[in-house]
Amino acid sequence: MKFDPEILKKLSINNKRLIARIISTVESESDLAIQILKELYINTGTAYRIGITGPPGAGKSTLTNQLTKHLLALDKSVAIIAVDPTSPFSGGALLGDRVRMNDIGMLDKVYIRSVATRGSLGGLSKKTIDIADVLDAAGFDYIIFETVGVGQSELDIAKIADTTVVTLVPESGDSIQAMKAGLMEIADVFVLNKCDRPEADKAYSSLQATLHLRNFSVEVWQPPVLKTKALLNEGIVELVDNIEKHRKFCYENSSCNKKRKKYFKERIINIVELLVKKEISDGSSKLINDSLNNVVSGNLSPYKLAEEVLLNYKSSNK
Amino acid sequence: MKFDPEILKKLSINNKRLIARIISTVESESDLAIQILKELYINTGTAYRIGITGPPGAGKSTLTNQLTKHLLALDKSVAIIAVDPTSPFSGGALLGDRVRMNDIGMLDKVYIRSVATRGSLGGLSKKTIDIADVLDAAGFDYIIFETVGVGQSELDIAKIADTTVVTLVPESGDSIQAMKAGLMEIADVFVLNKCDRPEADKAYSSLQATLHLRNFSVEVWQPPVLKTKALLNEGIVELVDNIEKHRKFCYENSSCNKKRKKYFKERIINIVELLVKKEISDGSSKLINDSLNNVVSGNLSPYKLAEEVLLNYKSSNK
Repeated sequence: MKFDPEILKKLSINNKRLIARIISTVESESDLAIQILKELYINTGTAYRIGITGPPGAGKSTLTNQLTKHLLALDKSVAIIAVDPTSPFSGGALLGDRVRMNDIGMLDKVYIRSVATRGSLGGLSKKTIDIADVLDAAGFDYIIFETVGVGQSELDIAKIADTTVVTLVPESGDSIQAMKAGLMEIADVFVLNKCDRPEADKAYSSLQATLHLRNFSVEVWQPPVLKTKALLNEGIVELVDNIEKHRKFCYENSSCNKKRKKYFKERIINIVELLVKKEISDGSSKLINDSLNNVVSGNLSPYKLAEEVLLNYKSSNK
Repeated sequence: MKFDPEILKKLSINNKRLIARIISTVESESDLAIQILKELYINTGTAYRIGITGPPGAGKSTLTNQLTKHLLALDKSVAIIAVDPTSPFSGGALLGDRVRMNDIGMLDKVYIRSVATRGSLGGLSKKTIDIADVLDAAGFDYIIFETVGVGQSELDIAKIADTTVVTLVPESGDSIQAMKAGLMEIADVFVLNKCDRPEADKAYSSLQATLHLRNFSVEVWQPPVLKTKALLNEGIVELVDNIEKHRKFCYENSSCNKKRKKYFKERIINIVELLVKKEISDGSSKLINDSLNNVVSGNLSPYKLAEEVLLNYKSSNK
């Protein structure tokens, strides 16, 4: 496929076939992918990115569906990226998608995409971020990242989301303890889902108490705790309201900006690494192959060979 | 800590404090870490590396413990690396370690280390490999990698293990179907654990049948299926025997070598990336910081900035 920048002009939320094609190209990490991502970046920045995370069984998919319906009712368009750390042992993502497809997937202003993060650099795939940029450039108002499995993605999602919603269930009264720093720090909004359960009040108080131990400051966003029953569609309006509150807060306070700068710095370095990797695979393949037997036999340290490769790479650019 | 190469001479399986200190240094990915890893590589290559993988609840920890005891009875030393993809939602690793510590952890010829892979490049941490090299250089006869959670590590472990043991339980009669290519391809030995369960025979036949669909060739290892009851210590002798058979097979057949070459190639490129990242963080920090606002505001593509950073990096080495 030769790249014609004109094609990006046709990218819109209504052109799902083109969206799918561009995403597939972008996923390939080819030179073309890099070219496309460079070109379309100028059209990004309008989509608001929401992350939905939390332990398995907390109702993340249901919450995502209800949230999407509410946003649609407000005449917004929504893209959902289901991030699957791909346990080879679970078919969670596929099943989840199928259920969802019947519900909202066929609607005009909705686009759903699963991303398997297996084998990628970092828990949350670089691909996820690139795909979000494609959907952003296409013009979606909201992009929802939903983590499907368990793992690193749960925490990484906070890096790329403007608002991170952490979903918990009441029975995790003690599991709240267990979650400790990790989730407490990334949440912009807590959702206590399945609040028809008897332990709901206790879990709510316990969560509030934990949050009150944190540092208070008007310049730092204080994450609210919302009670929802996603299956019954209760509490979703409040969720949308609180997401918007957080959005407004970040618009007015620079404290949120720090997180974004840090994220972009990481992203840029990751891209540089990708570019170097590509160039090395092309240019230093012979050098590596020639010395590989020495490494496999334990006679040459991979670290020493890596240094040689790097020197070779640098000198080839002189 | 200044590095004195002499200290590596003191590294031995009996010097657990030094092992722990060197591992901690190596985990830091500092310049010192790279120096140490370069130096000690020449002493690696004697430890045999076994990977124990499989779905949660298959009894991987119990199997690892029993396997370790059998190897100890054969007068071998064993290092266990528990690889935890670190869901922030589970305390599995810690608990597992504590149980194990009471059982075998205090024995002279055993060393146990947990590795959290969170935030690392790739599902299985680069750290895991570096730690294995330290333990190899210390002189352990066997290194067992045991995955604790669910995720990418399950598959990655096959890359770094000489023999990969995939553990299943009988009730996964249909889950065997679900596992498809992923696990089938990485297994050198299958263990059907908890074989006192009624579904055991059915699961065994089903697994055998699936394996027979594969390509047969004398040059390619055919993974055996073993029945065990790890809790009762039944079938462990056969497991050790089959691991040794696989070891012998790989010693005599070059087909196993291909996998190792591929792995080392990946590893070398990963190290080059790490080195580049270090140098860029030092040398291009100003360039990135100066342009970061333009990226955050959506006016400059991170891909364009990354290219500039790379050019800057190359020209600074001219």
